[in-house]
Amino acid sequence: MVTEQRLRRWLHDARRGRRPAAALLDDLARLPFENLGFARLDTHRALRRGHPEVVLCEGKTPAHLLAIAQRVAHGRGPVLLTRLDPALAPALLRRIPHLRYVPLARIAYRRARHSPRLAGLVAVVSGGTSDLAVAEEAAVTAAALGSRVARLYDVGVAGVHRLLHEWKTLRAARVVIVVAGMEGALASVVAGLIRAPVIAVPTSVGYGASFQGIAPLLAMMNSCVPGVAVVNIDNGFGAGYLAQVINRPPRR
Amino acid sequence: MVTEQRLRRWLHDARRGRRPAAALLDDLARLPFENLGFARLDTHRALRRGHPEVVLCEGKTPAHLLAIAQRVAHGRGPVLLTRLDPALAPALLRRIPHLRYVPLARIAYRRARHSPRLAGLVAVVSGGTSDLAVAEEAAVTAAALGSRVARLYDVGVAGVHRLLHEWKTLRAARVVIVVAGMEGALASVVAGLIRAPVIAVPTSVGYGASFQGIAPLLAMMNSCVPGVAVVNIDNGFGAGYLAQVINRPPRR
Amino acid sequence: MVTEQRLRRWLHDARRGRRPAAALLDDLARLPFENLGFARLDTHRALRRGHPEVVLCEGKTPAHLLAIAQRVAHGRGPVLLTRLDPALAPALLRRIPHLRYVPLARIAYRRARHSPRLAGLVAVVSGGTSDLAVAEEAAVTAAALGSRVARLYDVGVAGVHRLLHEWKTLRAARVVIVVAGMEGALASVVAGLIRAPVIAVPTSVGYGASFQGIAPLLAMMNSCVPGVAVVNIDNGFGAGYLAQVINRPPRR
Amino acid sequence: MVTEQRLRRWLHDARRGRRPAAALLDDLARLPFENLGFARLDTHRALRRGHPEVVLCEGKTPAHLLAIAQRVAHGRGPVLLTRLDPALAPALLRRIPHLRYVPLARIAYRRARHSPRLAGLVAVVSGGTSDLAVAEEAAVTAAALGSRVARLYDVGVAGVHRLLHEWKTLRAARVVIVVAGMEGALASVVAGLIRAPVIAVPTSVGYGASFQGIAPLLAMMNSCVPGVAVVNIDNGFGAGYLAQVINRPPRR
Amino acid sequence: MVTEQRLRRWLHDARRGRRPAAALLDDLARLPFENLGFARLDTHRALRRGHPEVVLCEGKTPAHLLAIAQRVAHGRGPVLLTRLDPALAPALLRRIPHLRYVPLARIAYRRARHSPRLAGLVAVVSGGTSDLAVAEEAAVTAAALGSRVARLYDVGVAGVHRLLHEWKTLRAARVVIVVAGMEGALASVVAGLIRAPVIAVPTSVGYGASFQGIAPLLAMMNSCVPGVAVVNIDNGFGAGYLAQVINRPPRR
Amino acid sequence: MVTEQRLRRWLHDARRGRRPAAALLDDLARLPFENLGFARLDTHRALRRGHPEVVLCEGKTPAHLLAIAQRVAHGRGPVLLTRLDPALAPALLRRIPHLRYVPLARIAYRRARHSPRLAGLVAVVSGGTSDLAVAEEAAVTAAALGSRVARLYDVGVAGVHRLLHEWKTLRAARVVIVVAGMEGALASVVAGLIRAPVIAVPTSVGYGASFQGIAPLLAMMNSCVPGVAVVNIDNGFGAGYLAQVINRPPRR
Amino acid sequence: MVTEQRLRRWLHDARRGRRPAAALLDDLARLPFENLGFARLDTHRALRRGHPEVVLCEGKTPAHLLAIAQRVAHGRGPVLLTRLDPALAPALLRRIPHLRYVPLARIAYRRARHSPRLAGLVAVVSGGTSDLAVAEEAAVTAAALGSRVARLYDVGVAGVHRLLHEWKTLRAARVVIVVAGMEGALASVVAGLIRAPVIAVPTSVGYGASFQGIAPLLAMMNSCVPGVAVVNIDNGFGAGYLAQVINRPPRR
Amino acid sequence: MVTEQRLRRWLHDARRGRRPAAALLDDLARLPFENLGFARLDTHRALRRGHPEVVLCEGKTPAHLLAIAQRVAHGRGPVLLTRLDPALAPALLRRIPHLRYVPLARIAYRRARHSPRLAGLVAVVSGGTSDLAVAEEAAVTAAALGSRVARLYDVGVAGVHRLLHEWKTLRAARVVIVVAGMEGALASVVAGLIRAPVIAVPTSVGYGASFQGIAPLLAMMNSCVPGVAVVNIDNGFGAGYLAQVINRPPRR
Repeated sequence: MVTEQRLRRWLHDARRGRRPAAALLDDLARLPFENLGFARLDTHRALRRGHPEVVLCEGKTPAHLLAIAQRVAHGRGPVLLTRLDPALAPALLRRIPHLRYVPLARIAYRRARHSPRLAGLVAVVSGGTSDLAVAEEAAVTAAALGSRVARLYDVGVAGVHRLLHEWKTLRAARVVIVVAGMEGALASVVAGLIRAPVIAVPTSVGYGASFQGIAPLLAMMNSCVPGVAVVNIDNGFGAGYLAQVINRPPRR
Repeated sequence: MVTEQRLRRWLHDARRGRRPAAALLDDLARLPFENLGFARLDTHRALRRGHPEVVLCEGKTPAHLLAIAQRVAHGRGPVLLTRLDPALAPALLRRIPHLRYVPLARIAYRRARHSPRLAGLVAVVSGGTSDLAVAEEAAVTAAALGSRVARLYDVGVAGVHRLLHEWKTLRAARVVIVVAGMEGALASVVAGLIRAPVIAVPTSVGYGASFQGIAPLLAMMNSCVPGVAVVNIDNGFGAGYLAQVINRPPRR
Repeated sequence: MVTEQRLRRWLHDARRGRRPAAALLDDLARLPFENLGFARLDTHRALRRGHPEVVLCEGKTPAHLLAIAQRVAHGRGPVLLTRLDPALAPALLRRIPHLRYVPLARIAYRRARHSPRLAGLVAVVSGGTSDLAVAEEAAVTAAALGSRVARLYDVGVAGVHRLLHEWKTLRAARVVIVVAGMEGALASVVAGLIRAPVIAVPTSVGYGASFQGIAPLLAMMNSCVPGVAVVNIDNGFGAGYLAQVINRPPRR
Repeated sequence: MVTEQRLRRWLHDARRGRRPAAALLDDLARLPFENLGFARLDTHRALRRGHPEVVLCEGKTPAHLLAIAQRVAHGRGPVLLTRLDPALAPALLRRIPHLRYVPLARIAYRRARHSPRLAGLVAVVSGGTSDLAVAEEAAVTAAALGSRVARLYDVGVAGVHRLLHEWKTLRAARVVIVVAGMEGALASVVAGLIRAPVIAVPTSVGYGASFQGIAPLLAMMNSCVPGVAVVNIDNGFGAGYLAQVINRPPRR
Repeated sequence: MVTEQRLRRWLHDARRGRRPAAALLDDLARLPFENLGFARLDTHRALRRGHPEVVLCEGKTPAHLLAIAQRVAHGRGPVLLTRLDPALAPALLRRIPHLRYVPLARIAYRRARHSPRLAGLVAVVSGGTSDLAVAEEAAVTAAALGSRVARLYDVGVAGVHRLLHEWKTLRAARVVIVVAGMEGALASVVAGLIRAPVIAVPTSVGYGASFQGIAPLLAMMNSCVPGVAVVNIDNGFGAGYLAQVINRPPRR
Repeated sequence: MVTEQRLRRWLHDARRGRRPAAALLDDLARLPFENLGFARLDTHRALRRGHPEVVLCEGKTPAHLLAIAQRVAHGRGPVLLTRLDPALAPALLRRIPHLRYVPLARIAYRRARHSPRLAGLVAVVSGGTSDLAVAEEAAVTAAALGSRVARLYDVGVAGVHRLLHEWKTLRAARVVIVVAGMEGALASVVAGLIRAPVIAVPTSVGYGASFQGIAPLLAMMNSCVPGVAVVNIDNGFGAGYLAQVINRPPRR
Repeated sequence: MVTEQRLRRWLHDARRGRRPAAALLDDLARLPFENLGFARLDTHRALRRGHPEVVLCEGKTPAHLLAIAQRVAHGRGPVLLTRLDPALAPALLRRIPHLRYVPLARIAYRRARHSPRLAGLVAVVSGGTSDLAVAEEAAVTAAALGSRVARLYDVGVAGVHRLLHEWKTLRAARVVIVVAGMEGALASVVAGLIRAPVIAVPTSVGYGASFQGIAPLLAMMNSCVPGVAVVNIDNGFGAGYLAQVINRPPRR
Repeated sequence: MVTEQRLRRWLHDARRGRRPAAALLDDLARLPFENLGFARLDTHRALRRGHPEVVLCEGKTPAHLLAIAQRVAHGRGPVLLTRLDPALAPALLRRIPHLRYVPLARIAYRRARHSPRLAGLVAVVSGGTSDLAVAEEAAVTAAALGSRVARLYDVGVAGVHRLLHEWKTLRAARVVIVVAGMEGALASVVAGLIRAPVIAVPTSVGYGASFQGIAPLLAMMNSCVPGVAVVNIDNGFGAGYLAQVINRPPRR
């Protein structure tokens, strides 16, 4: 099997020219996966990417989902299942030990044992109470993967003093996630106040010319404040995952 | 000819039932206009709408423009010519007495004699220096039509303290025009701070996913703060005109 | 607590230079809000903006909605709850004294005691019977906030004489709201006849190439008649609120 | 060669069952065309469609255009060349006898000899002076093909009395073409007043959210008044051609 | 009351200059309508436009619909109700004598007594069996208003010989309606074969990149064959109405 | 009747000039079809196109579908019914002998007797388990029409080694179908590795800014690797059909 | 170096299990490329994909282009440079022996020596003379890569008999490329007549609602005739390349 | 003046409750800026955000630009001017000491004295040579702000082995910027291989259905690989800035 140590040695040797570059592809080819027929589990992902394969539950048949989730949860490692329908959660909770389900975030997860919290703080800021589900998806994801998380909800620009009130928490964060629908102005206002990178999540909250999230998406892409990058509409998970990746200290 | 007094008497009579409603249409039919062949000047507009016909110069041939402008400027009344190419301005300035041209705003205008300034203040707020031309189109329009105007430029949300610094001017205004490109967040932030109506003008300033002003347009349409309405992209004139209409005290 | 009088004195002092500008931000920071955890009620909004925080009920869980509405309705002040599902209304009506519910407009409201009607008239004009719900949302909002309201419904351009018939009411209004779906032509036709500002509300009424309201939205943004501004598709509330803000006499 | 008489006899026979349906395709296959290598002139079009092949000059190289135009103009029949660049017109006028060029409409044409005017009237209505070029393209096309044409220009909805003033001409027309940019409201207003079919031509006149004619296109597609159909943006030729086709009395 | 005779006399006098133009507006103002509060029935429409007001049932509450339909059907004149839900039809059929309902077309109608069929033929051509409902809406509308109608269904371009087979019917028609979804190619192919005007109706039939009818709408707008105009997506009624208007001989 | 032999002779003669070109249209006109009133079955399609008419079941009423399917299945030839609702399948299976239904692909089919498999291989590659239904539609179509099919599922670019693992199967294929939603990157990556043509099928799998398949559609249209062409969103059938057409050896 | 023989042996061994799958990746890693700093030439592409790397000249600086083209043309192999500005062609023709430039197609190419023409025929069909440049890009590409090519130009659906006239050439082709702008109907009409696969190329020819090629793109994606796939707007090269790939007999 | 030390003390005190939250706003209000009339320089930005105000040169008049740049460059601090037209660069280089201009990146910058390089590596990966300008804008920005930068250009997915060849550099990076036009697939492929966060920059390189960068923008937003966030089209600066922000070690 390909352990992290082995992978590191390969890279080390390649860097020093002791191994031809081509051999790295050989390494890659030996990366294991598991073929279930309808799905191929990337069992090597934890080593390559630092986190195991996350399962997007939406769009899978219940039978496929159960099979995939059980394979992924095999052993004692961490598990993260997103967009999990509350109706399907009980079946999974029965079958997978130590799994927890957060209905508002629609996430089921199990943390790795003995994995300590990271030092850095991820702040999740949301514009209104209608954005709560997406904000929680981001917060629960980052927390499940190992980050400390602070939640600053309903601090939209309609009453900007509510946001200013939280300035010190914002400035203390290593990464800030801003979740907002409607006009998405919050991302720019937050980014203008702080040093940390801002991950903006447009939500489909709104109506009419919000076009299911296009309005805040465009607003966030066009932020006049640098230091902001955007993930897909309602993609709380993606924001939480990226925040964790940034928060994670670099390997030495 | 149909004077304002006569129009008022008609309306007065109609309100009291002394004249059938249908007669009002008769009034309407008698409203004068002047047929130049390629254009029909609505010479009655000042009475009906409170301001004379404004000429949008863009898209007209120079010959047509000269003819129309001279007819509109006939007499001593107010004149407002928008989107006037600097190359065409001198010819008009030579022919129309007392006309002034503001290159940045691309507006030529002549105020009515003895027309006093209105009591109310129109504040024009802009996000960045690239929005100046549109902001000036709004400011010059409102001023030419009779409003007092305050200019608060380059107070975008990247450094929100620059805006907060102007809070008292904002709160003193009867109407606030917010001109912004990119993500257009400024309209919501301003509206959240004040009582007055906000007219938002998206600009085509930006690039990529700003889509020539669609991004701020959508942001402004979706403002989470009520009390905001939007005019067309780069339509500084429309905002200035509407601000003046709101600022104008109702007729008694 | 920060009363209006105090706020006015601050502004007065700041205007006369008796207080540094920075102190105004200090004022702002002291503006109160109430943190419910999932929501932060902007209890200071009535003073800052002239009307209390309005609750958009859509998108909130029933539990959150009940909690927020009860907090907002605490005391005897005015209340305005929009997009309120008829199924949820009875629970609110039981808990909040003097609350009234208008099913067609989907609004629940309570007027402030002893608040007199404003002198100005808000005219709400609609194109067809299918636009009634949005038109009523606008009319009820403006009335609940204190305006006198005239309703001119089903006067679309297919039979323009029905509109002309109401010319005198239109000309008497301080603000006119035009609600129209399909091609949205009504806003321009109305604006061409009157002095007052026009707030245009595109509706999602129509099919095919109306694209859920994009067609009238674009038509209204592009009105060849100045004096028109646009709010979001189906945003009757926004139009009614803005009409009230314009109608409200400026503070002296 | 296939003359009209022969074509009629075929149809007559087919209708009476004296000839198998399949034979009609045989007729079709024998329809002549002329192969220039880079173009195949449909020399039979006049018989099949009632008008000869019209040449859209835009997008063709000058050499191709000259060759095609000369072949089409061969003989003494009618000729219609649209979107003809003024720079290319002189070369064509030199080579093709009796050809006339109308710069504003960018059309060169030659009427068939002795072809009488049709009895019906085509009215071309335009919203503003900036729409003149498209309106003239429609008017010149209809006139070149044989219709009587009335021009009603600059009667936009900003001053609806200018339009009402022309009610009798509108009611006398067999077909009405409405040319309008910006919000395109004119098509609906005209259609509501008359019996005749309305052909609506959106123009790319406008800016910002007119999106080069999408706004009036959508408005016209969504007209609340039946009896309106739409052609492509700026397609004055298409409207003039269709008006002529409708105006033309049916063959007996 | 304003009879057709009277209207004609007015026009006649105006044409001869015996009556000022303004008086025509007076006529217009005297046009009657009936105010139901939530709706204003344009009872004069039959005289002005040649057909009575058609009721679009979609989007109206059942109570409003019943009230409007009964008022429209008052007397013995023709009636046309479109987009009528099959569940609501029985209630209307019970209340309005001689009304007929066509479920596939979702139309209820009553023809005027003794109204003869027009001489001209309206051909309705459809691309596939999935377009039947829209094609029938067009066909039933034209027939209910007085046209002879020929139906040529399922003659899409996948097997163009099926269309060619019907060439003689197509060439005999005064107007041709082409109903097609997916790529909408049928309109161009039909128009290339005939003299008559073509009204193209894009349908929302298709999936994926048909975007609910945008694909055929654009195809039809861009037809390389002149003589085609387009109505809204799925607007069979509009096509049938316009076909009737074109088919109707001009008044003398 | 028109047999293939006869058709070939016609073409042969035409090629050698023994028959005028026009006679070919005559041939075309004699191509048979069957008119069911609401549908015209192109019974000649198998000869002209190499495969019989395929029935798209979606959008047809059950009665129409049954009638069409039974006519198409008349005799012993091959049958292919796509987008067949599972609820309607049993009725068809009872009536049509030897018909098989594949629920995941929503296809019912019957292969022609004694039709041998083609030599070439069609590889169907899919990005994720959520794309399975579309991938199966493609695979079942190609197999039902006569191709050998290899399925390579869940080899998305998140773990590119899973794809590289199948390189030899990919390189052995005569045609490769790539089915992918989300960012659709898989088509380019696959095409860069092989010689065979790639048919790309974007799927509507995803959320937010995938816009029901527009994102992968655009990605596939813009592939930087030549040798890729795209079919409609979710159009597994179209890809399978085209793969078979390419796989089929040319007629000699 | 990695020759084709060696690559085949690898695959052969891998298929027979004589070599682990992982070793294939090793092969891949040994594939050569040449690093110019600003570009990495994929010198192995001819073996992997069957054709050498094609250079898209548009968007490259002249200096970069010259360097890349000369490297690619090193040796005597085939060369294909697309979208080559006529102004840059002479410099390349001077430096690269045997290179030919086709201005209309904007392609410079050099065929491999002694490479025989393929047996199959590629037919390139275009709708109008304005589509010539894109059609020629497709035709020249396919010919330069080794296919026999037939050109059928200006056979648009406005006169469908011109197309039917070429039926026998169409039926003889192994692959048909259809190039069309405006409504793009030609692709469906052609596909309905033949057995061969159709590659559809939408062009940006047209105006207004053709939206620079979106209209024909959508039409082609939604073809009601199976057997059609689409490449990018104006992508004549991509169509010609794919046609060649399909035309090329499979390796045995 | 407000030094960083002072700011830290304020925050420290606020955290410990020694200072009321409201006082923080007071701090904010005291943040300095410089009012040039047409622009307000946020001179405090370096302390608040960690980097000084960056000047976007595009859209500013030369006079405004010169004035702003000189004020920003006052003193000896770092300077960053983006989108600087080569024609305007010399004037700035003359006036601002130590300024350097990189034409391909269109950036002028001056690094702070004695500022050491950060330990982390920013890798900039680009798909093709046409993306060079945007990639360089990103690389130069990150380097000018203090990061070590590795450039991996022209490693697009058409020949994925070129990318795999650089695996070790990719895995060593603290942040990876992926710049790609066309289908934008590169971002997902890169992200699937590494641990570090990926900032994706879509470019407007491409034609037709790339829609000036919308295609890669959507592809990147919909990446099936988590750990990717997107900045605006062609926004190389934004990506470089964000990479630096992530690379920068957190303050302790």
